[in-house]
Amino acid sequence: MADRPVEELDWKTPLEAAHRPSLNQIAKTGINGILDPIAPGIPAGSDVATLALLGYDSVRVYSGRGALEAIGSGTKILPGDVTFRCNFATVNERGMIIDRRAGRIANEEARRLANSLQQIKLKRPSNVRFLFKSTIQHRTVFSLRGPKLSTAVSDSDPGKTGEKPQEIKPLDNSAEAKLTARIVNDLLHDFHAALKNHPLNKEREKRGLPQANIVLCRGAGTIPNIKPLAEIYDIRATCVAAAPLVKGVCKAAGMKVIEVKGATGTPQTDYISKARATVQTLKTSDFVLLHVKATDVTSHDKNPKEKVEIIEKVDGILGYLLEHTDPASTYVAVTADHTTSTATGNHEGDPVPIAITGPYVRRDDVTEYSERTCAEGGLNRIKGKDLMPTLMNLIGKTRKFGA
Amino acid sequence: MADRPVEELDWKTPLEAAHRPSLNQIAKTGINGILDPIAPGIPAGSDVATLALLGYDSVRVYSGRGALEAIGSGTKILPGDVTFRCNFATVNERGMIIDRRAGRIANEEARRLANSLQQIKLKRPSNVRFLFKSTIQHRTVFSLRGPKLSTAVSDSDPGKTGEKPQEIKPLDNSAEAKLTARIVNDLLHDFHAALKNHPLNKEREKRGLPQANIVLCRGAGTIPNIKPLAEIYDIRATCVAAAPLVKGVCKAAGMKVIEVKGATGTPQTDYISKARATVQTLKTSDFVLLHVKATDVTSHDKNPKEKVEIIEKVDGILGYLLEHTDPASTYVAVTADHTTSTATGNHEGDPVPIAITGPYVRRDDVTEYSERTCAEGGLNRIKGKDLMPTLMNLIGKTRKFGA
Repeated sequence: MADRPVEELDWKTPLEAAHRPSLNQIAKTGINGILDPIAPGIPAGSDVATLALLGYDSVRVYSGRGALEAIGSGTKILPGDVTFRCNFATVNERGMIIDRRAGRIANEEARRLANSLQQIKLKRPSNVRFLFKSTIQHRTVFSLRGPKLSTAVSDSDPGKTGEKPQEIKPLDNSAEAKLTARIVNDLLHDFHAALKNHPLNKEREKRGLPQANIVLCRGAGTIPNIKPLAEIYDIRATCVAAAPLVKGVCKAAGMKVIEVKGATGTPQTDYISKARATVQTLKTSDFVLLHVKATDVTSHDKNPKEKVEIIEKVDGILGYLLEHTDPASTYVAVTADHTTSTATGNHEGDPVPIAITGPYVRRDDVTEYSERTCAEGGLNRIKGKDLMPTLMNLIGKTRKFGA
Repeated sequence: MADRPVEELDWKTPLEAAHRPSLNQIAKTGINGILDPIAPGIPAGSDVATLALLGYDSVRVYSGRGALEAIGSGTKILPGDVTFRCNFATVNERGMIIDRRAGRIANEEARRLANSLQQIKLKRPSNVRFLFKSTIQHRTVFSLRGPKLSTAVSDSDPGKTGEKPQEIKPLDNSAEAKLTARIVNDLLHDFHAALKNHPLNKEREKRGLPQANIVLCRGAGTIPNIKPLAEIYDIRATCVAAAPLVKGVCKAAGMKVIEVKGATGTPQTDYISKARATVQTLKTSDFVLLHVKATDVTSHDKNPKEKVEIIEKVDGILGYLLEHTDPASTYVAVTADHTTSTATGNHEGDPVPIAITGPYVRRDDVTEYSERTCAEGGLNRIKGKDLMPTLMNLIGKTRKFGA
């Protein structure tokens, strides 16, 4: 949700440009501040940022994005499985990447392609198995299971168009990293060969759509070794999200993940269903994380005006929450997991706004929710990992340090 | 002193509700901010918080409350002695704790009981000695000295009424922890037997007072291994406090501790005597820590209105200090060691206000001293351990890091 001022919106941020009565209501009745997901100036991925917002020391516990996205999409992987987050993408005849998301290919088509790739046989070593599965749109999970593997390998995804996919390289001198890089390079080569000639891609070409003719991988990782929230704070914690990565982080934190009908992780998600599910879940949970992915999608697409519309829908969610929860016993905190600039299309290192309303907060003088107004609030500037202790303290779930 | 807004005070904090001309004067002529004793949202005990305010990294150096309280009360213990902070408390005939402070028993009566308990013989092992001593009201020190002891033992004090005292358990697998737990359990059993039949408790029963018929222990610890302030900053540092814990932390930091007549660590303490002693002491000290305990007492008792009165007396202390020190050569900093909520009666993780006045501070626009107004000040949000370097630098006592 957080952004920088953009020319297209008269140098307002999308948040500032949005009609946002409920966000402003939370700011007005709450305590506000700005929050660095990791540290000032450091652009955070959604994985480390969400880990931080759940109170974990991301710098220490982060073990790659792939495994988080995999468990979030319901893929059954085990601790130790080396898992990548991959995209179906489009390369031209010279091998240059021309669309990193294969035109945001539809779920059903991505599933057909993934099923084909899963049929490929890995020749050697014989004690390694792979799993390839599509999740949402172009996003896929690719995981290796075997006795001698390592997450210390580089990405094939260069992160931008106009370049060729990179060879996966071992990042240390271990035999495990070398083996893993070799297996992944071989498989990605086989995937490309299979996709190039896949009937579905011929169809897409006819329809004028970018072919999903390559798999770009990044974020080799394993399930992080973290204590469940229930154990740290003695709470029942639930997640309402559609984005597999966020669901994965929440699962890794031991949270219950609610599946909401119509929640898709896209701008077309059913916003009010998520709000309704959250209110319902609050009856049996101490803490509910409600996540909307769509603001990030429009940012990566450099579409500030659509982002404004999404923020207005998020405001609708908050209106529903404020209307259907008891203000005398409920705390509501609103923040973003990172700044994404609609000008650069990238995650940026600017802090994000944070507002917390509820019975015992020290209300401040902020009356609007935005990147700039929240910076004047009573929380001042905190770190991502400070938020969870702050919230848990408000609901009486932190332990005293010292006596 | 710091608190959250409370309904009883029209959603002001006690600090905001108090008439506080001198506190406001300090804010107005100074630089202000908010301070997290340890980190945002983490409720701090007075021990770790005071260590932090003296500039120590509490998370690293903290070694339990018991030993700090003991040396603060003038009890002679040595490095290595395993020392608990204990309360005289009241259990009913079913063994349930009904008053964790035995009606805040008077000093003289607590002393009589402690003297009786000190007569009990520890049968085995023969090379361990114990010491039992009352300090203020229900508070006592209980210390073990011997060659094979450990601080890795749990508390007998469950921290609330309506439960039975807990058995002390070893917190690791060492023979030392097991032995220590066994000795303490045996002694606490003997203490209970002696207190139940103590003539003083029969008297208290007749007077309708809760019997001090059990000893509840917590915070096994040793004297922390920290560098004296004199060595870190080349200063003469003095403490004016009555609360044994604060005196203990100051002693551990190598500070001189001044005994002030009439300073009791209770709401009935002689506020102006402490102010006078501080002014006197400043003639020969570079740094004086003046501590008032009473605000915390009224918070734990959930009495916001009495807390307002105490804050007004603290304001009187500051008025005296401002009047009797030279503003051209004196810095005055006012803060709290933690937030205590008069609503929950607990230490809470909210930050505390901080104001520093003196000749060379960068004055800001804050004109009132409170949790909320200070948050708008020029110090922004700092950590407890940042305060001492800030103050020492203002008086020219910090060393440059780097060249």
